[in-house]
Amino acid sequence: MGLSREDCVRLDREDPLAFARERFVIPAGVNYLDGNSLGALPRGVSERVRHVVDEEWGVGLIRSWNQAGWYAAPGRIGARIAPLLGAAPHQVTVTETISINLFKLLVAAARLRPNRRKIVAELGNFPSDNHIVDSVCRMLGLTPVYVTAGEIADAVDDDTAVAELSHVNYRTAEIQDMAAVTAAIHAKGALVVWDLAHSTGAVEFSLDDARADFAVGCGYKFLNGGPGAPSHVYVAERHLAAVDQPLTGWFGHAAPFAFAHEFARAEGIRSMLCSTPQMLSTAALEAALDAFDGVSMREVQAKGRALGDLMIRLYDERLADLGCGLSASRDGSRRGNHVSITHPNGFQIMQALIARGIIGDFRAPDVMRFGFGALYVRFVDIFDAVQGVEDLLRSGEWRDVPPPNANDVT
Amino acid sequence: MGLSREDCVRLDREDPLAFARERFVIPAGVNYLDGNSLGALPRGVSERVRHVVDEEWGVGLIRSWNQAGWYAAPGRIGARIAPLLGAAPHQVTVTETISINLFKLLVAAARLRPNRRKIVAELGNFPSDNHIVDSVCRMLGLTPVYVTAGEIADAVDDDTAVAELSHVNYRTAEIQDMAAVTAAIHAKGALVVWDLAHSTGAVEFSLDDARADFAVGCGYKFLNGGPGAPSHVYVAERHLAAVDQPLTGWFGHAAPFAFAHEFARAEGIRSMLCSTPQMLSTAALEAALDAFDGVSMREVQAKGRALGDLMIRLYDERLADLGCGLSASRDGSRRGNHVSITHPNGFQIMQALIARGIIGDFRAPDVMRFGFGALYVRFVDIFDAVQGVEDLLRSGEWRDVPPPNANDVT
Repeated sequence: MGLSREDCVRLDREDPLAFARERFVIPAGVNYLDGNSLGALPRGVSERVRHVVDEEWGVGLIRSWNQAGWYAAPGRIGARIAPLLGAAPHQVTVTETISINLFKLLVAAARLRPNRRKIVAELGNFPSDNHIVDSVCRMLGLTPVYVTAGEIADAVDDDTAVAELSHVNYRTAEIQDMAAVTAAIHAKGALVVWDLAHSTGAVEFSLDDARADFAVGCGYKFLNGGPGAPSHVYVAERHLAAVDQPLTGWFGHAAPFAFAHEFARAEGIRSMLCSTPQMLSTAALEAALDAFDGVSMREVQAKGRALGDLMIRLYDERLADLGCGLSASRDGSRRGNHVSITHPNGFQIMQALIARGIIGDFRAPDVMRFGFGALYVRFVDIFDAVQGVEDLLRSGEWRDVPPPNANDVT
Repeated sequence: MGLSREDCVRLDREDPLAFARERFVIPAGVNYLDGNSLGALPRGVSERVRHVVDEEWGVGLIRSWNQAGWYAAPGRIGARIAPLLGAAPHQVTVTETISINLFKLLVAAARLRPNRRKIVAELGNFPSDNHIVDSVCRMLGLTPVYVTAGEIADAVDDDTAVAELSHVNYRTAEIQDMAAVTAAIHAKGALVVWDLAHSTGAVEFSLDDARADFAVGCGYKFLNGGPGAPSHVYVAERHLAAVDQPLTGWFGHAAPFAFAHEFARAEGIRSMLCSTPQMLSTAALEAALDAFDGVSMREVQAKGRALGDLMIRLYDERLADLGCGLSASRDGSRRGNHVSITHPNGFQIMQALIARGIIGDFRAPDVMRFGFGALYVRFVDIFDAVQGVEDLLRSGEWRDVPPPNANDVT
């Protein structure tokens, strides 16, 4: 006998994180399962951004760089994100984007291993990570080596400067064992850069305990920092004095207001900064972090895992026989906070779902991805989403949607 | 007989751009002469940002990348800035920061001149431009050559890949002859990157007419786009097909939603993008551009020049004998929209001025810089600022201010 909607309503009543949904604006008629492309709007962000515009910019003007704390914002927000990464606070800052920070870190890592000629990276990672790997290799005369995440440890050798991979895969949500993979990479004398795009704010981990060297993460997914919110970057304490990144802008200068011709690296994590931060987007991210107050990442991951387990059970009961596939681990301990269901017409099905207010996203060629912002997604939302897919497949109504256009943002 | 405050009030009455001041929020008691570090808040920006947060993010959620036009924003805003640069619209986009865009352009330029081993850059330019020049040279094995702006044309030789300099100097406001310098650089077969940080929205010029190759500009100074507003970048039509920049993120991919392992450059100016734009800051910049509606850059420059002429006349009358120096061209046709007055205790004087609501900024070691956002600065503001400096120097009250701290944002 299959699980009913009433069973899911009961799960929501018993959910210890249910209170956190009130911390978000969830529009009526929307079942939002796209937390891993753009998190929902946390309450309080709008007021904070309005204050930054009207008071700090409008009235404070240039004085706000000091008086409103803009100048210190990257490190202050980094320190606030650090506990979500299992990291001591002075190792994290907020700046720019994942790709740009990855470029900085890969070059810096290669400079720490100057006699090694290879970068090993993950085949099947989010493609722009690998585009950046290719670009760094081209500029530095290194050779990129691509293997699947599970093969990284074996592919790293004594000619490998650095390995780069995602902690949680953007399609399958498979979680890598951060400590074990890091140890294997270190055993060959190489360094590691972890991409936390689908990890930060979604699952529990500890960069410090895993002895990670470097990491980059995303502000606009599970941190709910708003569209294009700035990235965060981690440099382990033991590398802070030596890390030497190539985007040498004035915010990473030891004395930016001395206006010296020579570059001198700022001390500590500040040397990872390049340019003046985009303060409206930065302030939104800072305010969004309030949604995590008093919530542990262990609880968040447990809820996300339960939501994923539910979706997989409902998939088995309702979708497996309708031409769908499951691109997600059934072992919840190895799965991050999203579940991908494949179908040859996934694009059209997802568009039809979105038209009904059930919002996931599509990743070419065939992945319908449902992400669980565990602070606001309910068990009943999972039920309704699976039922929505089932209804579309049985009715064939997805055929009314035109086929994909490569330039659409899906 | 010196100029009086009443004379300046009369100049304001006769000012054809006086109407534009109503387009800005200028707080009571503030005389804002810091347009070239952070422009004032244009009316309409606050409402636009609130709409982006509350409606486009809060309600539209991920759908807003298409439906609210976020995805197209970089090119759309670039096309809107293009007329201020004297550029056809398809050559301009809005993305990231000056330093990051400069890094992209210098690498791309060097790749277009692969057999040349030097980058010539401006001694006395804003330092982070030169930090980026140094970094690019280090990564590509090139040699940086620094000469003053006036010596650039002579220093470029047939081993020079690219020259980089500011159109308007950040201290002296000296304007380079863009067409003549570009022609001299091209005569040696080299390319040019112009830094427009103190040009865009301040003075009239034409990248297209000057046959410039590449340019970067600032969103938060004379465009009034808000703290850390994104930069704009120009690539001349003739280079668009070949330009090959190293920050290869998904927003610069020809088919970002195909998720292909291989990078394929987007067509046209879009290839200069790297990552997801920080949309709140991007939207503020777009709304801010309304302040330029119906105003020509010729009028803006003429007003700025008149304001600068006035400040220099008042400097001569009131400050020249009080230990100050003038670090600005007296030839208004060669001077951008700021005037720098030097004093050994400039930091303390500027802080004391700011405490009185007269806001310029300080550039070490001794420059008090007054920038003229010509859309909102009045002639009487110039009078009051000079009188403020005079009063402080005569009274010695600046001595109450503690000396500078290198980590303050001034």
